Amino acid sequence: MEADIGLVGLAVMGENLVLNMESKGFTVAVFNRTVDKVEAFVAGRGKGKKIIGAKSVAELVKSLKKPRKIMIMVKAGSAVDDTIAQIAPHLEKGDILIDGGNTHYPDTIRRVKEAEAKGLLYIGTGVSGGEEGALLGPSIMPGGSPAAWTTVKPIFQAIAAKAGHDPCCDWVGEGGAGHYVKMVHNGIEYGDMQIIGEAYHLMRDLLGMSAPEMHEVFKAWNQGDLDSYLIEITRDILAAKDADGKPLVDKILDKAGQKGTGKWTGTSALDLGVPLTLIAESVFARCISSQKDERVEAGKILKGPKAAFTGDRKAFLADLERAVYASKIVSYAQGYALLRAAGKENGWKLNNGGIALMWRGGCIIRSAFLGKIKEAFDKNPELVNLMTTPFFAEQLQKAQEGWRRVVASAVVNGIPVPAISIALSYFDGYRTPNLPANLLQAQRDYFGAHNFERVDKPRGEMFHHNWTGRGGDTVSSTYQV
Amino acid sequence: MEADIGLVGLAVMGENLVLNMESKGFTVAVFNRTVDKVEAFVAGRGKGKKIIGAKSVAELVKSLKKPRKIMIMVKAGSAVDDTIAQIAPHLEKGDILIDGGNTHYPDTIRRVKEAEAKGLLYIGTGVSGGEEGALLGPSIMPGGSPAAWTTVKPIFQAIAAKAGHDPCCDWVGEGGAGHYVKMVHNGIEYGDMQIIGEAYHLMRDLLGMSAPEMHEVFKAWNQGDLDSYLIEITRDILAAKDADGKPLVDKILDKAGQKGTGKWTGTSALDLGVPLTLIAESVFARCISSQKDERVEAGKILKGPKAAFTGDRKAFLADLERAVYASKIVSYAQGYALLRAAGKENGWKLNNGGIALMWRGGCIIRSAFLGKIKEAFDKNPELVNLMTTPFFAEQLQKAQEGWRRVVASAVVNGIPVPAISIALSYFDGYRTPNLPANLLQAQRDYFGAHNFERVDKPRGEMFHHNWTGRGGDTVSSTYQV
Repeated sequence: MEADIGLVGLAVMGENLVLNMESKGFTVAVFNRTVDKVEAFVAGRGKGKKIIGAKSVAELVKSLKKPRKIMIMVKAGSAVDDTIAQIAPHLEKGDILIDGGNTHYPDTIRRVKEAEAKGLLYIGTGVSGGEEGALLGPSIMPGGSPAAWTTVKPIFQAIAAKAGHDPCCDWVGEGGAGHYVKMVHNGIEYGDMQIIGEAYHLMRDLLGMSAPEMHEVFKAWNQGDLDSYLIEITRDILAAKDADGKPLVDKILDKAGQKGTGKWTGTSALDLGVPLTLIAESVFARCISSQKDERVEAGKILKGPKAAFTGDRKAFLADLERAVYASKIVSYAQGYALLRAAGKENGWKLNNGGIALMWRGGCIIRSAFLGKIKEAFDKNPELVNLMTTPFFAEQLQKAQEGWRRVVASAVVNGIPVPAISIALSYFDGYRTPNLPANLLQAQRDYFGAHNFERVDKPRGEMFHHNWTGRGGDTVSSTYQV
Repeated sequence: MEADIGLVGLAVMGENLVLNMESKGFTVAVFNRTVDKVEAFVAGRGKGKKIIGAKSVAELVKSLKKPRKIMIMVKAGSAVDDTIAQIAPHLEKGDILIDGGNTHYPDTIRRVKEAEAKGLLYIGTGVSGGEEGALLGPSIMPGGSPAAWTTVKPIFQAIAAKAGHDPCCDWVGEGGAGHYVKMVHNGIEYGDMQIIGEAYHLMRDLLGMSAPEMHEVFKAWNQGDLDSYLIEITRDILAAKDADGKPLVDKILDKAGQKGTGKWTGTSALDLGVPLTLIAESVFARCISSQKDERVEAGKILKGPKAAFTGDRKAFLADLERAVYASKIVSYAQGYALLRAAGKENGWKLNNGGIALMWRGGCIIRSAFLGKIKEAFDKNPELVNLMTTPFFAEQLQKAQEGWRRVVASAVVNGIPVPAISIALSYFDGYRTPNLPANLLQAQRDYFGAHNFERVDKPRGEMFHHNWTGRGGDTVSSTYQV
């Protein structure tokens, strides 16, 4: 029995991917640094299945069909390098290494080069969907050595989630493109979760709704435009009861952690000069949530208005649904703008419609909405900003009055909605032909002789004004702001 | 004639620092890679002054009193390393290298170590105030080898700006602390400029005010709590006329660039998990401004409300003044929170009151307001958040109703005020004991078995709920969001 693919790293995600592959007819060889785990898995969840337990890397490699395909599911970071270093000496030209962890894309860019220099092929792939996704059908976002794709494609597309009949897996692009797209996926996930959290916060603290009442709202939302995995699980979470029969959500501490990918997305946006405001605010909102003790103390000192809702609750909930939807449009528009900039920067030819399809099913951000995004990119693959397509422009137009009412109510009632309100700021900023940056350019020219362009002169022609009558016409070279 | 200090790099900032030092009684030796510049400077602006022109690095070093102090004013980056490499072989133990450029602090951390390994001392210092500040009195923020400070102190404090009688220069801390504080200064500068820009935008496009009318408002603001350099130059900019007698500000293109320090500040905040929302939004606002062509196109497709102000204009302007002031408090509170986290991370003992004093005069963000911040840190050097001090809490309390009205008006009228509104979100978030992050933790536990804490159990005790009845009690190890 020769295996179709090998997998190293039998944590839950790795195990579930193996069982998924096996269930689709592939024979899988497995190895784990702690070899006990191999035996336990083969004798346990893997019992009676086409799974070969290897006691060493050499044994693993020997059991594989050529060209060999070995998927690495270990902790992102140096463990990946260590694993590669152990395996690579056993491989032959054309063999394929696949990193399926949450690796930071610069590492993947480096490893693709290192592997190719040895004559190997390398894929860095995002795998999303959590444990259950890994078992039943994840979203898979592979990038790296293009020559590896045809070999790996049948396995990956077989185990991936399906949106209708389409597999939620396609080739993303060269180098670190796969992990980059997964990173942006995670950033968008941060954003989606924050938007939902803010809607929940308004329902809870402005409308004074109970968890069961909110459950009904999310249930209804999940049958409309917001139909998505995260809305669905929010619906279920709000129905979950603690041992005492009371809503479990009310017993959970409001202190959220973060693990890096949202932060990386924000950092990349800053580096590329892309206004990814909603995701950045979502990361920062988690930071504020983590300052629980500070907030409790500050709450005793800094008093706000007493939140009191007096209007039509049903109308407000309808506004809120539109506000959530519009904020999502902004977040995805920003995420795609980031992908566009990253693709340009790194020379990746990204398939934007394909990316929407990969996210359409299997992963945490899967939604009906992504089908609309795919349509938009299918119509115009060179799209500059999602918001300006006929479909989304119309949705934003429909949403904006309610969206504005929601933000204004939150502001007046002292309930923070950073993501929903910054989305509105972006919408308003992006559609404003004349922003106040003319004043800013004047300030920079005033104190730093930075020069400015004029509205009545050709672009690129720079002017300096002697604002103080003292500074002369010199141009700043060292001082930079 | 032996020189008290040497300076390498005769761009405008370097020249002006030399003239400043000389005017305070110091003899300065100068060198520039393009030696023609040395001759031109000594024969030109430096004529008849105690300035020694050096034709080589060796000559520069020979002309200096021991321990030698050499200030490097070249472009941040590899040019600094190149300059150090040229000078270092000529130096002796205990000589001091000083980098006065806008260096990214990790480079300074590295260079301090490298210099000290050679027996040299190293200072990385922020110098703020632009060309005019360099000449007449900049804000100087030195950090690096503590042993260098007593030697350099008399020169730096003599040339620095004064706030009353206090020099706007003091020792910041070890390693890269000086450049870090300068970076945060620049970030805060981005924030201050953005807040002013948004106030200007509301006056211009919501109240329909002309530049001369706005000039009067900023003139009045500069005599109140907002008294500061940036408000002052905004006042002057709004009075400046183009050749045709019309306001010059209206002719300037609204497309602002950025040079890195604001971005670095945002990146550092993300890395340290500090919610530095206002500065991050200010950087992103510049990014949006730079997308001028996209905005013009989007403005044709995405229509908003027609801005129309119907209330009491005078009352609105009073609200706006409070909104600007409150937003500034938030921005500085966030900036100081970042410094606190960075100090902890890097082992720097930062003098927070001293930093406020360094920013109090000489630099772009100088203001009366910083005197209040110094007072707050003098009273409590271990302050966790500026907003909760009696003075600033009272100011926020006074401001908040007007602040909310301003943001709500902007939101309803379609005018983006990302900085002012995100400042309000932070104020509201930070004073809210119960944020919606309990739902977020439930979501993470649902799809990734991330575990959560409970409000009714001790902190640190983690719980997992089997939400679906299928997932079991396993805990995610590889999948991270």
